[in-house]
Amino acid sequence: MSKEHLFIKALHGEKVERPPVWMMRQAGRYLPEYIELRNKYDFFTRVQTPELACKITIQPVDIIGVDAAILFSDILVIPQAMGVEVQLLEHKGPILPRTITTEKDVNNLIVGDDAIGSLDYVSQAIKLIKKELNNRVPLIGFAGAPFTILCYLVEGKGSKNFDVAKQFCFSQPKLAHQLLNKITDVTISYLHEQVKSGADAVQVFDSWSGLLSPNDFNEFSLPYLNKISDSLSAHVPVILFPKGSWYALEELSKSSASSIGIDWCITPELARSLTQNKKTLQGNFDPCKLLLPIPQIQKEVKEMIDAFGKDRYIANLGHGILPNIPVENAKAFVEAVKNYR
Amino acid sequence: MSKEHLFIKALHGEKVERPPVWMMRQAGRYLPEYIELRNKYDFFTRVQTPELACKITIQPVDIIGVDAAILFSDILVIPQAMGVEVQLLEHKGPILPRTITTEKDVNNLIVGDDAIGSLDYVSQAIKLIKKELNNRVPLIGFAGAPFTILCYLVEGKGSKNFDVAKQFCFSQPKLAHQLLNKITDVTISYLHEQVKSGADAVQVFDSWSGLLSPNDFNEFSLPYLNKISDSLSAHVPVILFPKGSWYALEELSKSSASSIGIDWCITPELARSLTQNKKTLQGNFDPCKLLLPIPQIQKEVKEMIDAFGKDRYIANLGHGILPNIPVENAKAFVEAVKNYR
Repeated sequence: MSKEHLFIKALHGEKVERPPVWMMRQAGRYLPEYIELRNKYDFFTRVQTPELACKITIQPVDIIGVDAAILFSDILVIPQAMGVEVQLLEHKGPILPRTITTEKDVNNLIVGDDAIGSLDYVSQAIKLIKKELNNRVPLIGFAGAPFTILCYLVEGKGSKNFDVAKQFCFSQPKLAHQLLNKITDVTISYLHEQVKSGADAVQVFDSWSGLLSPNDFNEFSLPYLNKISDSLSAHVPVILFPKGSWYALEELSKSSASSIGIDWCITPELARSLTQNKKTLQGNFDPCKLLLPIPQIQKEVKEMIDAFGKDRYIANLGHGILPNIPVENAKAFVEAVKNYR
Repeated sequence: MSKEHLFIKALHGEKVERPPVWMMRQAGRYLPEYIELRNKYDFFTRVQTPELACKITIQPVDIIGVDAAILFSDILVIPQAMGVEVQLLEHKGPILPRTITTEKDVNNLIVGDDAIGSLDYVSQAIKLIKKELNNRVPLIGFAGAPFTILCYLVEGKGSKNFDVAKQFCFSQPKLAHQLLNKITDVTISYLHEQVKSGADAVQVFDSWSGLLSPNDFNEFSLPYLNKISDSLSAHVPVILFPKGSWYALEELSKSSASSIGIDWCITPELARSLTQNKKTLQGNFDPCKLLLPIPQIQKEVKEMIDAFGKDRYIANLGHGILPNIPVENAKAFVEAVKNYR
């Protein structure tokens, strides 16, 4: 059924009348309907209560008319499932009070069914969302990439450069790979659970891979992205989004993933050339530009699609939507894609 | 005289026996001798007292043996000179309590001789440093790039994405260009003063240009970098360091600058190819790698120089040295370059 959806057709590289559109963080703080729920329930209550996660996931489908829903959750549910405490306070970044820095820490992480079992609320949320969506649009599942999860586990908080996490990788590469392998195994099981529950595609967010040199990306990020993609792509289309790792596009075009996400720091033309038009590209509107007057948003969206071409393309931002964007502007972005001729 | 220095020869593209080496933030928190002065004097006292600025500038020449000194100062002396209060507290980023967001704010900025006059302490520091250096190594002067200074003026503090500053540029481009022009004019006069006082080369730090798309870089950063370079390069070699703007390398290779700085997120091979070997490249060791065991630092430095080639190259980090680097490791980096064969 869902193969008829524009989003899935674009992921499969089929010809489409216009590109599908969704926005990273489309279920979030720019929507008054979301703020209302945020004021009543704390972050992990929203994430862990299937009815709330379902409601929040579907809000942008109803309100701004995107072509795909994405599960409302957080990449840090994986550290939680592995036994690491995660605090997520509003207006602050995440805090992991006990970081993972020694072999003992890595050995003590929970893996396998014990980790996955604690994430059952996600499967329940997905089943509920699929029922409520009633095939209006497909549902994207997601997880953080192993390198990005390692960043939080080792650094213990958000960071501009994740120097501590990178120094851990460089000075203890063997231990870093043990940790990355554990995260990868749990992530693969977790994403398979999402697919079994009904996710129509999965996206892997490597939010911090762009802090690595090309060589270090090849060592600490790429093999794990490929392992995840290889395991999942036989079941659903996989989108890899290693933010900022433009230098890996040529290599990523050889992966089993259907699609690669890119940010705005590369031209569509170069991204196409580096991926030799083998992949569906997703992106890459600068989220700051959603504050422009609506006619200018329309103009820039048109130019973006012209540059990518309408096929093998999913219109999106190059990063999450910002909290101060007027809902009308978010709608204008979606409408501009829908009106593309 | 200073034309004989390796650093100047490399900037002029002359053949050298080995590349020169220095490190961004080489006068800084990893040096116990610096910490000693930091514990006695606050930041702007250190910057504004020529004797202290001189002492701090020369420390890394004596202690770790770099081939060039760089003036101890801060890019935010330009906002200060333009009449904007800047607070720099230890262990915190900078704070500019009154941001620049309206036409009136821009009109009220101090420019011309009134701005430059207040920076006389920099000229005095440079004269003192040149005397103390006694031609052992050349002295690099510097300033922040106009786009990066705009980021701080508009956002009022450090930021991961400088969304507020970017939204200002996108939604009020005319006002943004007025502001960028004012910053550029003051910066050009300031750098000429540095050269008159004895700076042998100047570097322009565009720390945040990598947050811009290629198109927006061409609009909000590049013209101002070029204006500064065109004005200065008849007098001293100019190094442009638009961190993260790898996509601009081809365009920058057409500039009047002698050298382009790059970070570690691009391979030496690609950087050479994009600049068609027309420029001296500077960089690009990942600062996190200075925590590696010394033999591995030596190995990676050798590989880096092999990849760039010894000519038209200045060995450096791709960003500032981190506070937790042992002095022995910083020395090992410098020594590894000096021992290159």
